[in-house]
Amino acid sequence: MARTILASATKEVVIGFDQPFVMIGERINPTGRKLFSKELKENNYWRVKKEALAQVEAGAQVLDVNVGVPLADEPGIMGEVIPLIQGLTDAPLCIDSSIIEALESGLAAYKGRPLLNSTTAEEEVMERVLPLVKKYDCAVVAISNDDTGISEDPDVRFEVAKRIVNRASDYGIKAEDVVVDPLVMPVGAVNSAGKDVFRLLHRLRNELGVNTTCGASNVAFGLPNRHAINNAFLPMLACAGMTSAIVNPLHEGLVPAVRASDVLNGVDPGCGNWIKNYRPAPAAGEERRGRGGRRGRRRA
Amino acid sequence: MARTILASATKEVVIGFDQPFVMIGERINPTGRKLFSKELKENNYWRVKKEALAQVEAGAQVLDVNVGVPLADEPGIMGEVIPLIQGLTDAPLCIDSSIIEALESGLAAYKGRPLLNSTTAEEEVMERVLPLVKKYDCAVVAISNDDTGISEDPDVRFEVAKRIVNRASDYGIKAEDVVVDPLVMPVGAVNSAGKDVFRLLHRLRNELGVNTTCGASNVAFGLPNRHAINNAFLPMLACAGMTSAIVNPLHEGLVPAVRASDVLNGVDPGCGNWIKNYRPAPAAGEERRGRGGRRGRRRA
Repeated sequence: MARTILASATKEVVIGFDQPFVMIGERINPTGRKLFSKELKENNYWRVKKEALAQVEAGAQVLDVNVGVPLADEPGIMGEVIPLIQGLTDAPLCIDSSIIEALESGLAAYKGRPLLNSTTAEEEVMERVLPLVKKYDCAVVAISNDDTGISEDPDVRFEVAKRIVNRASDYGIKAEDVVVDPLVMPVGAVNSAGKDVFRLLHRLRNELGVNTTCGASNVAFGLPNRHAINNAFLPMLACAGMTSAIVNPLHEGLVPAVRASDVLNGVDPGCGNWIKNYRPAPAAGEERRGRGGRRGRRRA
Repeated sequence: MARTILASATKEVVIGFDQPFVMIGERINPTGRKLFSKELKENNYWRVKKEALAQVEAGAQVLDVNVGVPLADEPGIMGEVIPLIQGLTDAPLCIDSSIIEALESGLAAYKGRPLLNSTTAEEEVMERVLPLVKKYDCAVVAISNDDTGISEDPDVRFEVAKRIVNRASDYGIKAEDVVVDPLVMPVGAVNSAGKDVFRLLHRLRNELGVNTTCGASNVAFGLPNRHAINNAFLPMLACAGMTSAIVNPLHEGLVPAVRASDVLNGVDPGCGNWIKNYRPAPAAGEERRGRGGRRGRRRA
């Protein structure tokens, strides 16, 4: 049973088949956001802090950190924001870059055990990323494409994932530290995209025994009422065996949908987390009678 | 591949593995509704009509019809409301009663091929319901409990369902006309209730090859924020292989969740149904330019 252990200096989050689904907040990412990009370039990190706090407050257990801005000093920025975020929240982080120096700078600055995002099965990428994973003893996202690109055939994507897991093993990295992203196609373009991923998840779980993640929102690309598709997709992914996803926890309904899938998958013991989050507030009179003392009121 | 064909006088709805998930509207049911019960007893059916139209408008493909009121003439009422509803909508109906005479009265009044709700594996019930199913050539809901009650063990419930399918076969009823209700326990009481049903659905689909249904809302009984659990449960059920459910289509978010599961299960070809239902309305100017003529406006 794969257990991918992520940690900050003070908090552990486990991705696993018998664990609550792990939501990795995607909002610390300037892609397509002009102001955010400009601010990062000027080493102005107020929005990074804001997004970090808002996502943890909304229910994200892990935060993805991507500071990729063209022509900016990405390794420098990464080295600065990682300690900044770790000073604000105890959520473990996912260090996300396509630039190897930025990954390394993030790893060097990080306290705990992060998730590194990502390697593919491209030879050059594996050769540069996997030694870092080994050196820093962290976990890594493995994206199922290789030098030939992304295959539409889910069985090919399975083989590509398997190749990364095997290569990682050559470096002494355990399968449980490889979190496979099976790649989700837009269902508007490939009608079988959802079904393909569900089947692929069964194979990844039963044949490779690995944890999985994905950028879930891609599935609804180009369709109207996207959020409703995403909010149904997450429970379906969880039902099919996915154990984490990179999501926007601020989208209405998404966090409750994922927490409900925990209840229904039997990984929220006694529905404790659900009840804690959604128990109605007690009425004023009730609160006074039952819990007045705990609110610290002094007697007159 | 099981295809359960339901029909009104003019419209066919197919429940099947390669078909859109069938939502059976549950609202024509006086259980726990004082006014509705009183009205039915007085043969006042305005609420039946209202609930029928509202549910079809909301997206239900089939309507459950239950007119069970203690001490009322249920067979008489059933015989009156069935033609009434069939005069209002072309949705096939599910004739729902625990009284055999009410089932028979509904069947006699019905035009088309209804779903009969229900038989259990109790000997006396099978002996009375299955001959009706054969006589009227309809489909039947098979609830997985027997004379010993409801088992918490999903494998026992599987065996009970199998017994009904076999008994139906003795009467000349095909397995594809038996829609199994695997029985959903409240997850607040039985923590594994969701997971149990998902596993059971795999067995029912792969070993018995039957279609399935359930009263989905029972799963969240006693928990806060119930609707959020239901809205996640339906896509999970669809992902695990369930092909229909008895639901309240008026609950916010439920119909989009089910339609999204069709998109993601690849049973909404070209996402056509999704786009038809959720395409944003064109802006006023655009509409005039592009479609003015179709609105039938006359030139001055």
